[in-house]
Amino acid sequence: MTEREPNVFDYIFNPRTVAIVGASRNDLATLALLSTKIKDRLFLVNPKYQEVLGKKCYRSILDVEERIDYAVVGVASMLVPQVLNECIQKGVPAAHIYTAGFSETGIRERVELEKEIQQMAKGKIRIIGPNCLGVYCPHSGLSVIPEASQEEGHVGIIAQSGSVVESLSYFGKTKNLKFSKMVSYGNAIDLDCPDFLESLTDDPETRIIGLYIEGSKNGTRLKTALSKAASQKPLIVIKGGMTEHGIRAASSHTASMAGTPEMWRSLFKQAGAIQVESFDELVNTIMAFDRSPFPEGNAAAIITNSGGFSVIQTDLCWRAGIDIPRFGLETIQELRRWVPIAGTSIGNPLDAWPIYYNVSSASGNLADIIKVVAADKGIHSLVFQFDQFRYLRRALGQRVESHMKLLIDLVLEGCQQARDREGKPVMVCVSLDPYLEDEEDRHYNLMMKRGFMDKGFPVYSTLDTAIKALANLCRFRTSLPGE
Amino acid sequence: MTEREPNVFDYIFNPRTVAIVGASRNDLATLALLSTKIKDRLFLVNPKYQEVLGKKCYRSILDVEERIDYAVVGVASMLVPQVLNECIQKGVPAAHIYTAGFSETGIRERVELEKEIQQMAKGKIRIIGPNCLGVYCPHSGLSVIPEASQEEGHVGIIAQSGSVVESLSYFGKTKNLKFSKMVSYGNAIDLDCPDFLESLTDDPETRIIGLYIEGSKNGTRLKTALSKAASQKPLIVIKGGMTEHGIRAASSHTASMAGTPEMWRSLFKQAGAIQVESFDELVNTIMAFDRSPFPEGNAAAIITNSGGFSVIQTDLCWRAGIDIPRFGLETIQELRRWVPIAGTSIGNPLDAWPIYYNVSSASGNLADIIKVVAADKGIHSLVFQFDQFRYLRRALGQRVESHMKLLIDLVLEGCQQARDREGKPVMVCVSLDPYLEDEEDRHYNLMMKRGFMDKGFPVYSTLDTAIKALANLCRFRTSLPGE
Repeated sequence: MTEREPNVFDYIFNPRTVAIVGASRNDLATLALLSTKIKDRLFLVNPKYQEVLGKKCYRSILDVEERIDYAVVGVASMLVPQVLNECIQKGVPAAHIYTAGFSETGIRERVELEKEIQQMAKGKIRIIGPNCLGVYCPHSGLSVIPEASQEEGHVGIIAQSGSVVESLSYFGKTKNLKFSKMVSYGNAIDLDCPDFLESLTDDPETRIIGLYIEGSKNGTRLKTALSKAASQKPLIVIKGGMTEHGIRAASSHTASMAGTPEMWRSLFKQAGAIQVESFDELVNTIMAFDRSPFPEGNAAAIITNSGGFSVIQTDLCWRAGIDIPRFGLETIQELRRWVPIAGTSIGNPLDAWPIYYNVSSASGNLADIIKVVAADKGIHSLVFQFDQFRYLRRALGQRVESHMKLLIDLVLEGCQQARDREGKPVMVCVSLDPYLEDEEDRHYNLMMKRGFMDKGFPVYSTLDTAIKALANLCRFRTSLPGE
Repeated sequence: MTEREPNVFDYIFNPRTVAIVGASRNDLATLALLSTKIKDRLFLVNPKYQEVLGKKCYRSILDVEERIDYAVVGVASMLVPQVLNECIQKGVPAAHIYTAGFSETGIRERVELEKEIQQMAKGKIRIIGPNCLGVYCPHSGLSVIPEASQEEGHVGIIAQSGSVVESLSYFGKTKNLKFSKMVSYGNAIDLDCPDFLESLTDDPETRIIGLYIEGSKNGTRLKTALSKAASQKPLIVIKGGMTEHGIRAASSHTASMAGTPEMWRSLFKQAGAIQVESFDELVNTIMAFDRSPFPEGNAAAIITNSGGFSVIQTDLCWRAGIDIPRFGLETIQELRRWVPIAGTSIGNPLDAWPIYYNVSSASGNLADIIKVVAADKGIHSLVFQFDQFRYLRRALGQRVESHMKLLIDLVLEGCQQARDREGKPVMVCVSLDPYLEDEEDRHYNLMMKRGFMDKGFPVYSTLDTAIKALANLCRFRTSLPGE
């Protein structure tokens, strides 16, 4: 909550009543809000209709009998001033202008129109937007994204771009990420990134903040808000428009002012925020933070099934800033009892493929191997990689289904001990090609992935992405003051 | 073919007869070779059996009546000297030692055993291995990978690691990559990387070479072979063991000698080879080379459906060395006739989402948009990205199936004109999350992917990977002498 407006974010995230101006049966905001628990406190406004999808529709927001806490404005851009005027008359404290077609077009009349709205709103109503998806908050049921999950979580998202928020809500379902609040704030003629950052910093439901930013109108305020946020919770940032061309694209997208890439990089670094470079890295890093204890250092163990790839992957780790040290002598001695020599290496990465065929409860199975590695004092985190599905199918035939179930239990047993008793993060990589059309391979892939996700582990489909996420997790620890 | 041994690669890639010493019903080489056209010219050897999977099994290779061109040796490491001795007596010109457990273990006796084999073979039989998967050649049917495709293509692979070759053969099926020859050469006690490079450089069936190398025993010979190969065809290289830890892992994997990362980087650069950094990048780059004309320069156009992401992606391009210039005035004028203003930007990246809803044959559909962009003289390549499946489903309901078919036809029409008439490479990104469990979304994703693959385009599931592959394609052009 900002100090200037102590209550505005109560209206924005948890409104008692919501109006959609420009409601229709094809409007995404209408469809979204009619499908959440907010639907009984929702008022539809559109002079064209008396009823939309079975719900009464008002000519004007002024005709609504009840007080309105929050308005979603989705009318044509030329009509926005009139609608906004009515919202002000009605005494609505906050409005989300969903409509696009303002300064981001670069067309003079549209830039002027945006200024007109800004002037009109000043001191009378708080605005999110225009040109954005506004607020998603599963706790209150606020959303303009149909199909968005209604489950509450602990990840807060602030994004200038609607696409980023929409994609996150979508990927969230696939990757079991649950959100506390998401905001897409578009052209930011009033409420801007620092306002939302302050609000999520103070929000106890939000434990991790993800931020997509293209530019800002007040660098000093932004810097203060970033530093305060990062001092209290992990803050993962992606900056759009880092390059000359990106800056041009950002300007045509949300009409933001932009600094140099170096300025932004140094700003994030000083603030203690973790800067990532792609949307995938953002999602993967949030997953790591959402599901892991913080590692004590940069030394990781990789348990894998391929010697050839362990060499490539060790290189990748090193480039990402992750150390893959030799195991301690005790660890090597224990492992040597169980891992056959030929075709594997007792070392880190641990290429332990014959162990994947052993699902007996006797000593030396995969759970034991993982526990031994996890107990090594020189190891701060684990990366577990598996892509042997087709080998197991070939070797085991009919028995593969029951074997896989036992194997998954063993792996989970080992990884849970690593995370929950040793307090070491475990990144899981169940390698899966997106275009895999072999339904049986896919079946076992998804079976293992679900096993890990159900136990709250972050699951990745390539080792590269798992390692990058781990490196970002390590960066948070090291940027904490006094550590 | 090497000058020393003019015929050895004829025996190795296209043997008239093959023996497997150590054949059994669970042996992968046995299973693989019994499933290809070579099966009638295959002889199984194992004193334990009289018959394996319905085929006669000999006690010793010496008992086989016919001459043997190529032997696959898969017996326990201690038995390898004896088997090799028999191969020499039999007059077999080349053997692949499949068995692992030699110098890569770091154990002294195993290192000694390897030296013994090397001495024994010298001047008497050419050896591939030990500790490797040997040769895959769909033309002759040679393979130790069951399930490997039997279709012939134009990509040649040389890899120290068996995992790399096996994964490539597997990914090849998913990604429609077809190979001329693949070699995994392991500890390389005789035939080494330069031998295979020379052979594939001279091979008319091989148009692109992919190389995974961990180290080499003769740097000068390697350099000559790399330069010669890269002067004749695209040579894409991944070096395992670039870092201190990678070097350690490489040494325990195939017991290679390793130089510094800088030495290797400069070696590849001087030779004109394109160095990549991960297995995924290797596969993605080979796909780009296998399916594209060479671009005239580094300037690309991105046709996408999300403003928020075009900003991030423009940044990614710039970092990869790809320029995303403004379109020419003529292009902008033509596009402005067709692309609505609100919510999209006429610019590069072109955020043209409303066009995806237009499948009419009248002017202004997606085919027209792509053709206009492809005709821009300042644009050397195109990146087409699509991930709107769920939006289209939501907006179109029942009509989505027929809409998608029309849309795919339009997109293909535009992209084929770009590639086949304008001679510009087109990278296709049909964004797909590997863990997507929404079967309907997946259905449309795969439908579009198949449409593009059937027309011979390289298809990627993330824009990041498509852009990296394009950047590598551009690197080949610019490293050509005189350009």
